[in-house]
Amino acid sequence: MSDLPKKVQINEEGPREGFQIEKTPIPTDRKIALIEALSETGLTHIQTVSFVNPKRVPGWADADAVVEGQTYKPGIDYAPLWLNPKGFQRALRHRDKLTLTGKISIGASEGFTIRNQNTDRDQLLRMQHEVVAQYKAADVPVESVGVNAAFGCNFQGDIPVGRVLEAVGQCFEIATAHDVAPRQIRLSDTMAWATPDRIKRTVGAVRDAYPDKDIHLHLHDTRGMAIANAYAGLEMGVASYDSAVAGLGGCPFAGHAGAAGNICTEDLVFLCAEMGIETGIDLDRMIAAASLAETIVGRPLPGSVMQGGTLTRFRQGVLRA
Amino acid sequence: MSDLPKKVQINEEGPREGFQIEKTPIPTDRKIALIEALSETGLTHIQTVSFVNPKRVPGWADADAVVEGQTYKPGIDYAPLWLNPKGFQRALRHRDKLTLTGKISIGASEGFTIRNQNTDRDQLLRMQHEVVAQYKAADVPVESVGVNAAFGCNFQGDIPVGRVLEAVGQCFEIATAHDVAPRQIRLSDTMAWATPDRIKRTVGAVRDAYPDKDIHLHLHDTRGMAIANAYAGLEMGVASYDSAVAGLGGCPFAGHAGAAGNICTEDLVFLCAEMGIETGIDLDRMIAAASLAETIVGRPLPGSVMQGGTLTRFRQGVLRA
Repeated sequence: MSDLPKKVQINEEGPREGFQIEKTPIPTDRKIALIEALSETGLTHIQTVSFVNPKRVPGWADADAVVEGQTYKPGIDYAPLWLNPKGFQRALRHRDKLTLTGKISIGASEGFTIRNQNTDRDQLLRMQHEVVAQYKAADVPVESVGVNAAFGCNFQGDIPVGRVLEAVGQCFEIATAHDVAPRQIRLSDTMAWATPDRIKRTVGAVRDAYPDKDIHLHLHDTRGMAIANAYAGLEMGVASYDSAVAGLGGCPFAGHAGAAGNICTEDLVFLCAEMGIETGIDLDRMIAAASLAETIVGRPLPGSVMQGGTLTRFRQGVLRA
Repeated sequence: MSDLPKKVQINEEGPREGFQIEKTPIPTDRKIALIEALSETGLTHIQTVSFVNPKRVPGWADADAVVEGQTYKPGIDYAPLWLNPKGFQRALRHRDKLTLTGKISIGASEGFTIRNQNTDRDQLLRMQHEVVAQYKAADVPVESVGVNAAFGCNFQGDIPVGRVLEAVGQCFEIATAHDVAPRQIRLSDTMAWATPDRIKRTVGAVRDAYPDKDIHLHLHDTRGMAIANAYAGLEMGVASYDSAVAGLGGCPFAGHAGAAGNICTEDLVFLCAEMGIETGIDLDRMIAAASLAETIVGRPLPGSVMQGGTLTRFRQGVLRA
């Protein structure tokens, strides 16, 4: 366990990831209320909105209104998601408020890429060259490379570690061609195929091949493995994770109904806190934000610690005789 | 990861553990239907009933009727729970049908013991001597020692590893005094305080102190850590677990409302299967039993794989272009 990080960076994706799949649109002011509650937790990175085609993701038709409407707390990066140059141009219009960072990402699986981004992988590689050129022209730093469906794919099946290394290599080739040097490698378990041993194998291989890069994990909880996968990541020294408050979210393009959201932020914070790993996040405030998220979507959300509670009051002796 | 077991024994506790907390009593024939569905999954050990005071646990007032009513499949141990000599005498009346094995168990925490068993720890130690004598007189093998609340306690707080070792030692002293040699040490996370690092520390210390004994884990999922804790157990070579289909259950005496059930059987089976660890359990049949459990209790149960599905059909290419 000597590889355990002392401090972990948690990037909150609940607002962006969670609200896109709700059947009833979430009112703009409720989205803002959650973003502002999350701003009080100690989080330093919150992905707030998605600049995507409102015909495909109607839940984010109000992205501009959310950006205009929220208040901005110093010390927090408020970040948008975009998937194509058109979305990037929309994001650029808010660069005074939002933190824009570029990513070079490709799917480990061609099948998923086609459905998720309406393109094939070779075309995506060519497009990534254009995208990076666009980032450079706009002076947006390219901070990461990313592999989607890195642990398995509903459309492609199991993803060999070699394919992940190949995809990472392709991303870095694109980066090099444009003279940029992303510091981070993002591995996404987009369709929840990962188990802890697979995390260790893949992260281990990527770490061995790119020892000077930081690894970041994006984990989904469709099969209940997310916390175990995060623990495996921690054991491998991974010190950066995406997560979603209350376990909000789910992938609308994963191809089946049961696709669950991201790993739950407050459960991950609890795990880290109990293991003595610093996150900078106040767990009680995060649980309060999770309760707000549940109120906003109007249905039970999958987070566990928000239901089961922390250990604090028991440690303080509330039940002691 | 060289300590990973090749094969894991999973003891199903869903029927016994799950039905005791439902507000509306579950009809006897529905309890039997679940037991019989579980009998078709490959499970070899099913805890079916609880011989406890029906005034304290009204959900098990029909324990005798369940034992009399179910069919018995060869190769499966159907086991009852009892907590005191009176319950044991009730179980003995069914020894032609049920598998009875004795356990010497004490709580790591005095506070919990008082509430859960209406006694204090010193009295419990004395009682355990009587209990073992009773087992020997009845020719019931004493196969395990057990420590409850081994990873923390709502009434006592954190439980130092040394206290767990002391409790295990007290149990073995009792065993030795009666010339019995339990082969297994059961560590129960009765109130869901465990995190994977705590599992590793405690299991490691117990394993070092008792290298010739098997370790068994009983894990609750109140704070969403159960699968990660099981993974930590697997990494430590622990090859025996309790679990509950669909995550049924919860502890009625834990002192707070959010106490969740055992680790979910089908999620644990999925974890093992994906890691190449044999359980002997058919995952699809286990998921079918989980769906039946959900129908029986009439509310959503916490299992994940029963919602998210297995990876089999994706591996078979159901979504391939």
